[in-house]
Amino acid sequence: MKKHNFSAGPSILPPEVLIKASQAVVDLDDSGLSLIEISHRSKAFVDIMENARALALELLGLEGKGYKALFLQGGASTQFLMVALNLLEKRAGYLNSGAWADKAIKEAKIYDDIYEVGSSKDANYNYIPKGYDVPSDYDYLHVTSNNTIYGTQIKDFPKCDIPLVCDMSSDIFSRTLDFTQFGLIYAGAQKNMGPSGTTLVVVREDILGKVSRKIPSMMDYKIHISKGSMFNTPPVFPIYTSMLTLEWLKGLGGIKAIEKENEKKSRLMYSEIDLNPLFKGFAAKEDRSDMNATFTLENENLKDTFESMLKEAGISGVNGHRSVGGYRASMYNAMPLDSVKVLVEVMSELESKA
Amino acid sequence: MKKHNFSAGPSILPPEVLIKASQAVVDLDDSGLSLIEISHRSKAFVDIMENARALALELLGLEGKGYKALFLQGGASTQFLMVALNLLEKRAGYLNSGAWADKAIKEAKIYDDIYEVGSSKDANYNYIPKGYDVPSDYDYLHVTSNNTIYGTQIKDFPKCDIPLVCDMSSDIFSRTLDFTQFGLIYAGAQKNMGPSGTTLVVVREDILGKVSRKIPSMMDYKIHISKGSMFNTPPVFPIYTSMLTLEWLKGLGGIKAIEKENEKKSRLMYSEIDLNPLFKGFAAKEDRSDMNATFTLENENLKDTFESMLKEAGISGVNGHRSVGGYRASMYNAMPLDSVKVLVEVMSELESKA
Repeated sequence: MKKHNFSAGPSILPPEVLIKASQAVVDLDDSGLSLIEISHRSKAFVDIMENARALALELLGLEGKGYKALFLQGGASTQFLMVALNLLEKRAGYLNSGAWADKAIKEAKIYDDIYEVGSSKDANYNYIPKGYDVPSDYDYLHVTSNNTIYGTQIKDFPKCDIPLVCDMSSDIFSRTLDFTQFGLIYAGAQKNMGPSGTTLVVVREDILGKVSRKIPSMMDYKIHISKGSMFNTPPVFPIYTSMLTLEWLKGLGGIKAIEKENEKKSRLMYSEIDLNPLFKGFAAKEDRSDMNATFTLENENLKDTFESMLKEAGISGVNGHRSVGGYRASMYNAMPLDSVKVLVEVMSELESKA
Repeated sequence: MKKHNFSAGPSILPPEVLIKASQAVVDLDDSGLSLIEISHRSKAFVDIMENARALALELLGLEGKGYKALFLQGGASTQFLMVALNLLEKRAGYLNSGAWADKAIKEAKIYDDIYEVGSSKDANYNYIPKGYDVPSDYDYLHVTSNNTIYGTQIKDFPKCDIPLVCDMSSDIFSRTLDFTQFGLIYAGAQKNMGPSGTTLVVVREDILGKVSRKIPSMMDYKIHISKGSMFNTPPVFPIYTSMLTLEWLKGLGGIKAIEKENEKKSRLMYSEIDLNPLFKGFAAKEDRSDMNATFTLENENLKDTFESMLKEAGISGVNGHRSVGGYRASMYNAMPLDSVKVLVEVMSELESKA
């Protein structure tokens, strides 16, 4: 039976990417060797790395604009630390819009005082704080574009004179934005780009080199840039698979094309949540994420019926995060509209049964 | 044509591991979902992680002896940093036996003064320093068990009263040792264990928690231990493939069995290097590595002939590191004796031609 994979991450990837990645594990491009047993300094892998880095900049419209793309290790959690080590000299502002933003703040606090420009923590992060001021003498402002757990997403990014740093782990490459408004973007691969194990960092070079501390080599963006993202052995499989996904996205017509698909999916999903009296959306309507729709059952007695119907329909990965409960439908780039239709039909069928 | 892959790393893996790993990228254990698109919190992946961690301890004979195994990200280069952050309070000793040891020293120096107990840097690291003293009031002694670039390997580890920390990236699981002599072992996966992108850390828990600094979460061994090596999303593919390799090794009879094979391979290789007048070994004989044999051609005029013969025989990855030159045959666990025979035959054929 076909599975409809709504997992929040690691999550769905295009079937053609999975097939190509699988093939490369046995034999990379008919070389007679596996992708994972060749030197990362070989021409074959250096080409993969350069292609992946170039594709990332191209898709974001950042080519020739002073940005560099890196494929690092350690997930967004390591970026919480690297951002502070590389950019935090006096003080930084952080928007506290979810558990991950909160963790980013906690890690940065090791190095200096952090100012929360806004927070929705008291409301279990069901909305995006707005209307806050950003002091212009801060080192940077850190925001999280999409909050996977709560299903909220920043629609309008704050205008500010200081570098805007954005954790885009769960919605990168999903919607058109003016990406030049960001000084630094980072994203764990495992939602919209590839398997877990690599993190994309896109940084405008001129914001680096302004802190006085000695940065450990593995934590230093400038060192990674100077080594072409190969300061040490990179995670070859996650990077290769990310490259395949970026190629797939380019082939579809880039972010503009996928954005249209993503809007269709989220419109369908939220219209069912709003119209079906059995369900209630968790996030504030104006802040709803196009990637993760969070909702609860109004009548808990229907839980078992609903969940066995989901299982019968081949729907997996829709359990909500424990801190929110209910359900979460993650509809990343690779999720076909048809899978959302199947989920919506199950929800609608539950209504007709109830 | 069959390739004989002597790459120094990322390097050869058992064919059955490559086939299983490739299959899992499309469909994990007939689940209908790919290994790389399921939640790392799913039972399927939690079982993989626990199995990998348990196998590592079992193969090293460290079960029930106060050790924990972690699969982290960032390579050995990140361990250079984590070792210092977690263990360095006053002063530590480092054995400088190669470029990687030298880098480990450089990173640790950010945090404190480091004492080099011995160094072979002046001789381009062609031997392992011996007969040095280790002050008993140091926090730890750091050594590198095998120096891939130079082809040297520690045969007798220093006896010391302080925790012995060992970078075992290029010879872990290759030879029997009393692994309880180590307080902490780390190893990038990409030589004897799996693909690049994960690093095995085996640590005796009682050596942790003794430094006064605040350690960032991603750098803190205690946090990773408390979260079962899943503080954040782990690199699922490198860990799964490492688990497959550890299962393969256990199936062969463990380290004791593979050690016999490794000795056969290195004996064959070094006997050719010593008996064939066209070649000269680089490393001091008593310190020769069973994993990486380094050698040069005595007559540079034969270079082109030798290299075209290597190519014809399907031999790849034998170029020496630029800092040593010549050739390097890496003979990790998954390398069959037959491949070494093919290389030795080419060397011998060159002699009969010359």
